[in-house]
Amino acid sequence: MYDDSSSRIVAGLREWIAKAPPDARLPSTRSLVAEYAASPVTVQRALRTLAAQGMVESRPGVGTFVRAARAAHPGDYGWQTAALGSPGSRVPRLSTALRTVPNDVIALHSGYPDRELLPERLVRAAFTRAARSDAAVNRPPAAGLPELQAWFAGELGAATPLGVMPPAPSDVIVFPGSQSGLSTAFRTLVGAGRPLLVESPTYWGAILAAAQAGVHLVPVPSGVHGPDPDELARAFAQTGARAFYAQPSFANPNGAQWPPEVADRVLGLVRRHGAFLIEDDWAHDLGIEAVPVPLAARDDGGHVVYLRSLTKSVSPAVRVAGVVARGPARERILAGAQAESMYVSGLLQAVALDVVTQPAWRTHLRGLGRRLGARRDLLVGALRAHVPEARLEAVPQGGLNLWVRLPDTTDLARLVRDCETAGVVIAPGDEWFPAEPAGNHLRLNYSGPNPGAFADGARVIGEALAGQQA
Amino acid sequence: MYDDSSSRIVAGLREWIAKAPPDARLPSTRSLVAEYAASPVTVQRALRTLAAQGMVESRPGVGTFVRAARAAHPGDYGWQTAALGSPGSRVPRLSTALRTVPNDVIALHSGYPDRELLPERLVRAAFTRAARSDAAVNRPPAAGLPELQAWFAGELGAATPLGVMPPAPSDVIVFPGSQSGLSTAFRTLVGAGRPLLVESPTYWGAILAAAQAGVHLVPVPSGVHGPDPDELARAFAQTGARAFYAQPSFANPNGAQWPPEVADRVLGLVRRHGAFLIEDDWAHDLGIEAVPVPLAARDDGGHVVYLRSLTKSVSPAVRVAGVVARGPARERILAGAQAESMYVSGLLQAVALDVVTQPAWRTHLRGLGRRLGARRDLLVGALRAHVPEARLEAVPQGGLNLWVRLPDTTDLARLVRDCETAGVVIAPGDEWFPAEPAGNHLRLNYSGPNPGAFADGARVIGEALAGQQA
Repeated sequence: MYDDSSSRIVAGLREWIAKAPPDARLPSTRSLVAEYAASPVTVQRALRTLAAQGMVESRPGVGTFVRAARAAHPGDYGWQTAALGSPGSRVPRLSTALRTVPNDVIALHSGYPDRELLPERLVRAAFTRAARSDAAVNRPPAAGLPELQAWFAGELGAATPLGVMPPAPSDVIVFPGSQSGLSTAFRTLVGAGRPLLVESPTYWGAILAAAQAGVHLVPVPSGVHGPDPDELARAFAQTGARAFYAQPSFANPNGAQWPPEVADRVLGLVRRHGAFLIEDDWAHDLGIEAVPVPLAARDDGGHVVYLRSLTKSVSPAVRVAGVVARGPARERILAGAQAESMYVSGLLQAVALDVVTQPAWRTHLRGLGRRLGARRDLLVGALRAHVPEARLEAVPQGGLNLWVRLPDTTDLARLVRDCETAGVVIAPGDEWFPAEPAGNHLRLNYSGPNPGAFADGARVIGEALAGQQA
Repeated sequence: MYDDSSSRIVAGLREWIAKAPPDARLPSTRSLVAEYAASPVTVQRALRTLAAQGMVESRPGVGTFVRAARAAHPGDYGWQTAALGSPGSRVPRLSTALRTVPNDVIALHSGYPDRELLPERLVRAAFTRAARSDAAVNRPPAAGLPELQAWFAGELGAATPLGVMPPAPSDVIVFPGSQSGLSTAFRTLVGAGRPLLVESPTYWGAILAAAQAGVHLVPVPSGVHGPDPDELARAFAQTGARAFYAQPSFANPNGAQWPPEVADRVLGLVRRHGAFLIEDDWAHDLGIEAVPVPLAARDDGGHVVYLRSLTKSVSPAVRVAGVVARGPARERILAGAQAESMYVSGLLQAVALDVVTQPAWRTHLRGLGRRLGARRDLLVGALRAHVPEARLEAVPQGGLNLWVRLPDTTDLARLVRDCETAGVVIAPGDEWFPAEPAGNHLRLNYSGPNPGAFADGARVIGEALAGQQA
């Protein structure tokens, strides 16, 4: 990973071992040093790696030997089927968005921005500073590093209008990523067997977390202007649900942004029904034309539980998210977070805080918006040129994705397969629907590597689609 | 945290603001530079922190002003009580072991080793290296960094006797700390409402995770030689449980180490009952006289699910644990881990791997064992000298704790309170019992700061105890 010459020796020796008889003696360190033009320290490191992998064993003073293959019989785990029983709820398979793929394909599927969109210099500098700080050896409080709690509260507080009480730092709970925040919020605020209203389509990670928590999802149709408030009102009334999960800004997958009147009506509905809005502000840093204003900023009645992630905008290595909640809900979520993960690495929290409080962070975000805009426009243009059948209901003003409707006659699974064969990885829209999909969609991510290949990617999609209709 | 002069200015200005009228103008940057003998960059940083905390607002070209206090009314969160309902299971309050306390008390309560026992130099160097590596910006696979999976598998494989199939790297799932591993194992292998056998006393974090997962705990009495196998057999037969959670080496709290015959009988029982042993090898690196040999090394039938944490021996900032499981159980746990936390920071995984593959790590562990032994003996001696009523059933051969029985007439809560008043923080044994405690116990941790104060600590406990019997 960070020691290429040692990895190279490991790879070379593994090949050597594969052809060697059991108990064969490896070449001496000295000859490996010569063969690989590496230092003795690097060679020793490679040998330790192989020993840890059970490939070789070292006999001090004698040498290093290929470990005798063990009598490897396939295990019989059939008994586990009875012990485990049927899973309480079918947890969906992992989304396409998390797949890792080789470098030589055109990747339009990923949920994570390419490295060139990250504040790499800031992140590395922050890790280097944190490595020298107390954060490298100290344990932070369970709710989070106080300075980071204050930052999350301050950011939301800065958007709070006069007359509304801004959140306090103690209203913030730090999680090891927003997926953990979602899981804990669903488990503690809703609970197994109880209903949770969600937009349809909605974030696949939320569908996954809900399945794991055993909560019962109730889909509310949602378009580019957010959920239909009348449908939402009906769903609250019919199910007695006390919580609604949503992404009001640049929703994943469809890029929806709620107009003020939708936001007002949703806030009114959760208040009237004594319910929570679990607001997932996943794309807070990913605005292109617009800067998201959280609904949470307008609520001091404890109705909005606010999730703010830093993983996508700072770095996938900085798994840190903040949840802002007030009143008994905060207590319930904090107890759940502690039982689930005890506390979050203080070093990751210090790094997150370091990055977002640098002056260069603001500069980075402005540049990020411009670059996301250019990538988005490039992909929109490529689709218009090469996939005339694709319908884009709206060009999103932020986020990472285009949500594309295909003709109803499309065989979506075949399309995805054909594109992959031609070297283009795309995500079928089904994964974002809590129930049956309301049509054939693709989610195309414009934040992946190599935007220069967007045109080629679109061409492949267009050809695969045309092939189906021929 | 890592910027002391900026924190100093923030603290000073907060005092100034507290006395200032709303909308007052702050001293100029130039005068703050002079007053605090800090650089303009540091002063600007302090002002940004205050702005983020909502204390001041900057008006470009004019100055920085105290933000007008908002109409702060206490929120009414009463409606949440109805929305949340009664919690499915009462999650216990956080343990004494997680409390942070001031530096001037004698701390015998903590569950985490003092900084002087950590491989601080290795950890800092690993973070510095990782900051320069791809791990700072890449996303690792959901099950973990392949090299770290291989290391966990290799460590367990190295203890595997001939004829038993060692685990494969793909049998390993990396978690953000062992608490997450426990929660996910309990939730996916047992499930809400189903029975889980546990030792009594047992680790409080496991009791917490079980409560959160809603599993039904069945206590099996356990002493310094581990659980009574006859009681365990009865518990399996009576409850139909398919899982037993245990710490076979240096159990927390009582330091128990299972003799080979107990280990054999327990393995036999889990096999006979088609059950899982969830083996929590929390103290693998904390041996003093003995090196733990995991029971998991002797099982290739998928009966033992093995938890190996690095947090306590590497650093509290390196929240990384490995779970080794085979067959359908592995699939079930992996699906649960993904729904819960998606993936673990690749940088933390790279740091963990870096530390445990350094030659200096072995040296550190040997020194750690010696130092833990010296601390243990110091505390044992202090107790014998100052708390004659305390009974120590066995001196543990590893781990971090002494488990001390006090007279049945002791008022434990009062004792803990009296000691704290006298500046000594101790953990009441109750927190380690899944049901009513089987007597009055203290768990005294010998890995906290300042072992030089152990004698004073024991003296205070002895006096408080004597005071109760007078």
